[in-house]
Amino acid sequence: MKLSKIIGFEVGDIRFPTSKTLVGSDAMNADPDYSAAYLEIKTDSPDGLSGHGFVFTIGRGNDVQVAAIRALETMFSGETVEDLLNDMGKTWKLMVHDSQFRWLGPEKGVMHMAIGAVINALWDLKAKREGLPLWLMLANMSPEQLADLVDYRYISDMISREGAVEIFERQLSSRNERIENLTASGYPAYTTSPGWLGYDDEKLTRLCHEAKAEGFGQIKLKVGADLEDDKRRLRIAREVLGPDYPIAVDANQRWGVQEAIDWINALKPHNPAWVEEPTSPDDILGHASIAKAVAPIKIATGENCGGRVMFKQFMQADAMQVVQIDATRVAGVNENIAIMLMAQKAGLPVCPHAGGVGLCEAVQHLSMFDFVAISGTMQNRVIEFVDHLHEHFVDPVVIAQGHYRAPLKAGSSQEMLVTSREKYRFPTGAEWRDQNRI
Amino acid sequence: MKLSKIIGFEVGDIRFPTSKTLVGSDAMNADPDYSAAYLEIKTDSPDGLSGHGFVFTIGRGNDVQVAAIRALETMFSGETVEDLLNDMGKTWKLMVHDSQFRWLGPEKGVMHMAIGAVINALWDLKAKREGLPLWLMLANMSPEQLADLVDYRYISDMISREGAVEIFERQLSSRNERIENLTASGYPAYTTSPGWLGYDDEKLTRLCHEAKAEGFGQIKLKVGADLEDDKRRLRIAREVLGPDYPIAVDANQRWGVQEAIDWINALKPHNPAWVEEPTSPDDILGHASIAKAVAPIKIATGENCGGRVMFKQFMQADAMQVVQIDATRVAGVNENIAIMLMAQKAGLPVCPHAGGVGLCEAVQHLSMFDFVAISGTMQNRVIEFVDHLHEHFVDPVVIAQGHYRAPLKAGSSQEMLVTSREKYRFPTGAEWRDQNRI
Repeated sequence: MKLSKIIGFEVGDIRFPTSKTLVGSDAMNADPDYSAAYLEIKTDSPDGLSGHGFVFTIGRGNDVQVAAIRALETMFSGETVEDLLNDMGKTWKLMVHDSQFRWLGPEKGVMHMAIGAVINALWDLKAKREGLPLWLMLANMSPEQLADLVDYRYISDMISREGAVEIFERQLSSRNERIENLTASGYPAYTTSPGWLGYDDEKLTRLCHEAKAEGFGQIKLKVGADLEDDKRRLRIAREVLGPDYPIAVDANQRWGVQEAIDWINALKPHNPAWVEEPTSPDDILGHASIAKAVAPIKIATGENCGGRVMFKQFMQADAMQVVQIDATRVAGVNENIAIMLMAQKAGLPVCPHAGGVGLCEAVQHLSMFDFVAISGTMQNRVIEFVDHLHEHFVDPVVIAQGHYRAPLKAGSSQEMLVTSREKYRFPTGAEWRDQNRI
Repeated sequence: MKLSKIIGFEVGDIRFPTSKTLVGSDAMNADPDYSAAYLEIKTDSPDGLSGHGFVFTIGRGNDVQVAAIRALETMFSGETVEDLLNDMGKTWKLMVHDSQFRWLGPEKGVMHMAIGAVINALWDLKAKREGLPLWLMLANMSPEQLADLVDYRYISDMISREGAVEIFERQLSSRNERIENLTASGYPAYTTSPGWLGYDDEKLTRLCHEAKAEGFGQIKLKVGADLEDDKRRLRIAREVLGPDYPIAVDANQRWGVQEAIDWINALKPHNPAWVEEPTSPDDILGHASIAKAVAPIKIATGENCGGRVMFKQFMQADAMQVVQIDATRVAGVNENIAIMLMAQKAGLPVCPHAGGVGLCEAVQHLSMFDFVAISGTMQNRVIEFVDHLHEHFVDPVVIAQGHYRAPLKAGSSQEMLVTSREKYRFPTGAEWRDQNRI
């Protein structure tokens, strides 16, 4: 086979004007415009395949994220696509360990997320070349191949390569069973659609009814702006859903440590399934204090957790009880595998953050791979679902009976329709030209 | 007085080709090109003054940092300069709390450092308007005014506004004494110039002699690439400088936790004054384990610490014994005041990171303010000094007898010469055009 080269990064600033409808409104994010710094990696291979990835943002600054992805293009001028895809662990280090780029994090924020988009786009390309959905392609890799994807620097006090191989080997003989199970029944989802702060009580009631009727086994409500409002909304949801139905709540970092403890204790009678992001996503010790003070209520966090070193400490400090990985916050698939391995080591469930634009499409592959090759179970595990913006993707998620159906098309489901990329391109696409005309 | 408006952000990608000489070479940063994403804020005021600030980077990615600073310009279209400068606490929150930009960190990495450059440029402008050096202008503010500069969100479990006022009040009556002391004798410096990994033993020996002869009370050596090399270099430095002279060492994040403990214990016989950045700058619990295992050797870190929430935890966990603030890593002067207040609360010395390009110029103001208004002492406190690239600044640092002389010109000393900004502009300035011709 003739080796191929990357011929270009096509990077787009794609923004959806979601702030108009208050979808996505919470105690910290009053008016997000769900956006993607979108990357298509094109090669000179005759197969015509390209790799797609993105970083999810919420509007302003999406152009900065675009600039960061563009800046990485120069790293690949001498490399063949085959070398990059054959050793994705090495490819990850090529970018993350680059000393000059590294200064801009290190290993967190805009530059780290940009690396994530490139890594994810390369995984998408690899899966398309192999003709498999990402989750299944990963599930076909050997324990050693999978263990080599992870950078153990800074996490060796929690997980070693040998420890990773051991985890993968433990699930190896029963992988096929779980692949069949997934293909037949999918992976449980929960829905955040009823819970945005911008919705009135009537809409909340209606959406709670709908969530249950549609087969979702859990919902989530946004909290943290006003305690009396939170109590009333939780009471309404409880009335609709019954005393035992799991209702998670999400404060989106609104509180200080003591404030969080007081607020959560005030919500305790409503029995939340978990409390998400009670305070700064960097405050490991703060989360640990909160978790201890409100036990047995579980603390969930991760969507704003910058990388594997932070996740490691949240687990070491008993500061998180639910591990909420995000497909585009860290440096892509490789780093999320590191995090899922540590969660398995710590005995904690991975329940991904999703919603936004394309996050459901992206993260389902990770949870399904987790089920097949790492955790071996769906117990206490759910993937977030928000029914929004899926129509812009080539292979949108399919939800049936409150479950994500296993994607079967080749790739990572991150490819956005060309028509959508053009219409929502900021600020020149038709959607934004129309906005500006008003 | 007629109110003025910001008429533009002039942002430049300025890079110095330092990788050619191995200045700045350490165990993680083999070939840095010291760079500045440089900001000049121009106003329509008849005074003609502008504000200067920058983010220090080490080369590739400086363009991303430039894009992030540019993205913030739109936030100021409706504001008067006087409103912005009169309430710098509010101005800080205007940017840091912006929900859409915040997603890109939150409060760390490229976007947060960009906010730091804007905040620092506004402080520079404010000091120029008042005709005072920044450190002295800050030292003239009341305890209440100073306390209002800090955002207590997420750090209220360590420091409150009341606690901050109390700290400032304690030093109030003796401020003038210390201002005179500073103006007469300056602030102690230590030098890293002898210690770069790229230097041979002969150069190390010569530079150690010179450092002592020039009156520096401490030096620092880079370590972490090769243990035998480190031992030999420490032995050489000890021979030159004597058994009691403070020699700090800096591993620049090279190690894992256990590796750090083993390596530091192997260096213990050489009695390092502190060990800097033993592992990932995000690993609070790792630093705590290391500090405990190598005590009484002190652990220093901070130059890559993303913000006040991380500093808070390093202090709470006894994970740092020396607090190394950096002028451009966090969101500017305001956040560094928060960090210095917490250090005072924790009883820890602030010994800033400097070097790079412009970091010495910028950070001296913070240590001098710390001395006058927060800590009240210079004991165990030193500012890093590297004798490099100062000639590019309008008001370069002056070192005499191993001390930083107190800057007396109006502003924050961050203004770079126009000729340097033009010559080193990447990639179009004369210096880079010449490079590319080779």
